Amino acid sequence: MDVATIVGVMLGFFVIVGAIVAGGGAGMFLHIPSLAITIGGMICATLIHFSLPQFLGIFSVIKKTIVTKIPSQPELIQKMVNFAAINRRDGTLALEPEIGKLSDMFFIKGMQLLVDGQDSEVIRDLLTPEIQYLQERHSKGKKILEFMGAAAPAFGMIGTLIGLIQMLRSLESPEKIGAGMAVALLTTFYGAFSANLIFIPLAGKLGIYSKEESTAMEMVVEGVCAVSQGDNPTTVREKLQAFVSQSRRQEVKATV
Amino acid sequence: MDVATIVGVMLGFFVIVGAIVAGGGAGMFLHIPSLAITIGGMICATLIHFSLPQFLGIFSVIKKTIVTKIPSQPELIQKMVNFAAINRRDGTLALEPEIGKLSDMFFIKGMQLLVDGQDSEVIRDLLTPEIQYLQERHSKGKKILEFMGAAAPAFGMIGTLIGLIQMLRSLESPEKIGAGMAVALLTTFYGAFSANLIFIPLAGKLGIYSKEESTAMEMVVEGVCAVSQGDNPTTVREKLQAFVSQSRRQEVKATV
Amino acid sequence: MDVATIVGVMLGFFVIVGAIVAGGGAGMFLHIPSLAITIGGMICATLIHFSLPQFLGIFSVIKKTIVTKIPSQPELIQKMVNFAAINRRDGTLALEPEIGKLSDMFFIKGMQLLVDGQDSEVIRDLLTPEIQYLQERHSKGKKILEFMGAAAPAFGMIGTLIGLIQMLRSLESPEKIGAGMAVALLTTFYGAFSANLIFIPLAGKLGIYSKEESTAMEMVVEGVCAVSQGDNPTTVREKLQAFVSQSRRQEVKATV
Amino acid sequence: MDVATIVGVMLGFFVIVGAIVAGGGAGMFLHIPSLAITIGGMICATLIHFSLPQFLGIFSVIKKTIVTKIPSQPELIQKMVNFAAINRRDGTLALEPEIGKLSDMFFIKGMQLLVDGQDSEVIRDLLTPEIQYLQERHSKGKKILEFMGAAAPAFGMIGTLIGLIQMLRSLESPEKIGAGMAVALLTTFYGAFSANLIFIPLAGKLGIYSKEESTAMEMVVEGVCAVSQGDNPTTVREKLQAFVSQSRRQEVKATV
Amino acid sequence: MDVATIVGVMLGFFVIVGAIVAGGGAGMFLHIPSLAITIGGMICATLIHFSLPQFLGIFSVIKKTIVTKIPSQPELIQKMVNFAAINRRDGTLALEPEIGKLSDMFFIKGMQLLVDGQDSEVIRDLLTPEIQYLQERHSKGKKILEFMGAAAPAFGMIGTLIGLIQMLRSLESPEKIGAGMAVALLTTFYGAFSANLIFIPLAGKLGIYSKEESTAMEMVVEGVCAVSQGDNPTTVREKLQAFVSQSRRQEVKATV
Repeated sequence: MDVATIVGVMLGFFVIVGAIVAGGGAGMFLHIPSLAITIGGMICATLIHFSLPQFLGIFSVIKKTIVTKIPSQPELIQKMVNFAAINRRDGTLALEPEIGKLSDMFFIKGMQLLVDGQDSEVIRDLLTPEIQYLQERHSKGKKILEFMGAAAPAFGMIGTLIGLIQMLRSLESPEKIGAGMAVALLTTFYGAFSANLIFIPLAGKLGIYSKEESTAMEMVVEGVCAVSQGDNPTTVREKLQAFVSQSRRQEVKATV
Repeated sequence: MDVATIVGVMLGFFVIVGAIVAGGGAGMFLHIPSLAITIGGMICATLIHFSLPQFLGIFSVIKKTIVTKIPSQPELIQKMVNFAAINRRDGTLALEPEIGKLSDMFFIKGMQLLVDGQDSEVIRDLLTPEIQYLQERHSKGKKILEFMGAAAPAFGMIGTLIGLIQMLRSLESPEKIGAGMAVALLTTFYGAFSANLIFIPLAGKLGIYSKEESTAMEMVVEGVCAVSQGDNPTTVREKLQAFVSQSRRQEVKATV
Repeated sequence: MDVATIVGVMLGFFVIVGAIVAGGGAGMFLHIPSLAITIGGMICATLIHFSLPQFLGIFSVIKKTIVTKIPSQPELIQKMVNFAAINRRDGTLALEPEIGKLSDMFFIKGMQLLVDGQDSEVIRDLLTPEIQYLQERHSKGKKILEFMGAAAPAFGMIGTLIGLIQMLRSLESPEKIGAGMAVALLTTFYGAFSANLIFIPLAGKLGIYSKEESTAMEMVVEGVCAVSQGDNPTTVREKLQAFVSQSRRQEVKATV
Repeated sequence: MDVATIVGVMLGFFVIVGAIVAGGGAGMFLHIPSLAITIGGMICATLIHFSLPQFLGIFSVIKKTIVTKIPSQPELIQKMVNFAAINRRDGTLALEPEIGKLSDMFFIKGMQLLVDGQDSEVIRDLLTPEIQYLQERHSKGKKILEFMGAAAPAFGMIGTLIGLIQMLRSLESPEKIGAGMAVALLTTFYGAFSANLIFIPLAGKLGIYSKEESTAMEMVVEGVCAVSQGDNPTTVREKLQAFVSQSRRQEVKATV
Repeated sequence: MDVATIVGVMLGFFVIVGAIVAGGGAGMFLHIPSLAITIGGMICATLIHFSLPQFLGIFSVIKKTIVTKIPSQPELIQKMVNFAAINRRDGTLALEPEIGKLSDMFFIKGMQLLVDGQDSEVIRDLLTPEIQYLQERHSKGKKILEFMGAAAPAFGMIGTLIGLIQMLRSLESPEKIGAGMAVALLTTFYGAFSANLIFIPLAGKLGIYSKEESTAMEMVVEGVCAVSQGDNPTTVREKLQAFVSQSRRQEVKATV
């Protein structure tokens, strides 16, 4: 998930900055006051719309979206099937060494509860709220990013209006018209660029990511509960394949 | 809640006005006739759309949103749990001194009814309509602010059209073109600025605020009714935690 | 209801026309061909979209919205409570002199049926269709006004395009550029002005007005039926207060 | 129905063309390459979006909308009541001479089935699919017209961009700027004009027309079935009046 | 289906390129850096929004939409009726030679299962997931195309802003203004052209195509199951005609 995001952002910057440098005069595209109006205005509007904790939470949500690796569904099913086999053969405690090989915190927590001998209902009650918590946080983050994607071009336009008005005042010196207008347009450029390359696509990615991560977490919950009930590997596989969306089921069948 | 709103509005003004002053000639950005067209036109359109009492009510709604302090959910639960303990130990009348320590009018009213020995059903019937009243008022206020956020840029554009037409008439004197155009663009600037920094984000905040305040009020109603029924502190805590959204429940657990 | 509409329209015209006059050259803002394109084009599009009777009905709907006085809810409840008391004390026929004091045609019709000794079911069956008729008429009127609010700026833009093309043709005579462009922009001004000050807010008002008037009519129906069944004044008041929206119930309680 | 459409289109053309002629130089407003870009581009996009048969069907839908005369509801009820009376007095066969006086094909088909002695259930099963067929065709036609109303201005803008780019290339010859720009704006004019005067209002009319025609057809089905069951004229009238929308019921009552 | 798409795209290119060539200087309309900004930026935004496999899948979806021939409904019904007759007369195995005459892979797979003597329930369970898989893939492809249709004009505008800013910098050399502005507008042209002629109509076509193809597949499933149950040809025809939309049923009746 995160590779496409990073590649997209980097390539996007590369394409746009490359076009700017190729056109010459890249230096004039960095103008701190214009950046302050566009980004500052957008942040202020976001602060007024949302509360401070909601606003600050957006950064950790974005970071997690890029950094966190969602376990692939075929791998997850394979691991659960293995755990079910170990559990049936050697008992629950034999799963303890397997926990150390896992990297996903949620998966580790579920396995720990399983090894601790918790009842499947208790495991479900302890893990399910974390999925809801994740979904709420992602949904709020998506709304904030979408608002930012609408506010950035608006403040870009406001900055351009300010620049145009100041430029038009000094129309007596025509040699300054061009430079003034170029600076005025910078804020519109910043607003359109940040909204269309960062905020709007990132809000979309957050929605797709949220669905994938919560599906993976639901699969962990369902799988751990099935193992704790002593289901045989085939039943575990069938239960988990019901979570796989139709379009990926064939791929899963191939690898498991 | 209110801190983010005030900080956002002030910082936004600071950023935009700062950019104007830095560009020189801040005086020309204050033009009373342009303000009259944009803000006056927007107010007239709002008057035609809504009724006079609805329009006047918007100011008190905004003021309350900024001034009123919503009690934090963990504090509220802690207080209710304490009141339940006092009530079980010393009886309802022992809660009377606690009322003086409260600052939220709605909470005080609920506690007063409790101390007065009202039945829990009577308390609920007397308090619930006030929550609905608040929600109706906030929802209407949100609609008016959203209409203002759409009308302000529209009248800004109308003002710019008027200014452009007047400027173009006197095209024979080219030295006046720049100044005329600058003045013409001022109304668009006023419209975009007021809509994007004030009306649209404030409408969003009102929606979030309305949900938080009515949740707090519902918690007060539920808590006071539970105490009046003589529930023990643990039951009261559990009843109130059902109101806390998943994303804040962990925080609440930590503090209570 | 109607005062805010009239004040809004008049004040809006005053503000915009005042700004035009203050800028000088108000005469050039009245240009019959430009008006013909904008308003004529909008009317033609509305004729194509809707049928002739629907289009003609819009004027009577607007007139009624401004002229008709909706009886205030507290007054209505007070009158109904009085009528219930008279009915219980002196019989239905004693209500006949009261009819003359009423001004609302729908209320008079309901009272007349009551005095004529009609059964409450018959009264309800005869009056309810008129409420539906009113709502249908208002809803259709709202749709037409909203379409006009979208068509007027569109034909304003079409007019400006025509003007620009004609002006650009005669670019050899540069002294005529300004005047030509000013005239070209007039249609956009007419379209934006009529849509944002008249059509869009009026459509909103019609929606609010429709809800208020049909609520008042439902209260008349409910009240007359209750009186005809011989309900006592307290029951009548309670039945009617259920119609009052939460936000106005306190006001009603205070005055009744 | 069709009169308002024709009057609207003709009057709209008259107003816009009149304004063009009054401004002088009407000849320059007819530019075949510009027309080809706007209308051709729109048709190509519509071809890509829809299939060829769907696209070709739109013309017959529009023609039918303008040409077909929907029987007025009071007339329809009156005729059905008469037929019910004839049927009760002289038997089904006595209705045969009445068929020749009808002009609506669907009505004729229904009456023919009635005279042929078909059972009311058979009549309903044979006629109902035609109503669904009509609604499907109209709904698809509305979607195509709405897409055309969105595509025409888009290709108008594309044409203007092409014209502007070509004009800017030859900026060395300033006397050609005006003419080039005038030609460039023609495509935007074509797009805005065709969308706002033809496609968008026609899509709206098709929706209103579809509802009215299918209501009339449902009334024919219901009426023919009622007559075939030997219902008396009063029952037939009551059954059909249930189809009349509230706002037209009074009118119907007056004429029947 | 595919013919209209190809004709539309080709004709659209022909119309637009023809207009460009007719206006002279077609060479300047091909500008690689401008193409890189518009198309590159759009691809990057799409990569950030969606995941890499989703993005790569869009090309195969588009190719299949154009290449795949959906079997016409009348033909399909005719074939199924024939197969039912053969099956009743000569048994299931007699259908084997018929499979070689089919071209649709899904139809072949269904017939193979039938000839293999699979139970109708097994056939349904094996074929239905493929229909869901197709619908999911098409629906995701439609969303990606719609996002591309929104992102292309946005990055076109960003490119134009970059070009304008660079051009305005060198305003001292007025002879370069025209050429610079022409290049700046190219990206807006690329964005508007690709969105309105390719992405938006193709997304629409994908939706229509998806519905038609999945209907055809459902008819195959239903038909094969009916044949495997030994239904007689008339029953098979009736079962399949229920799938035909009302508007095409008449056509089907005519040909079968």
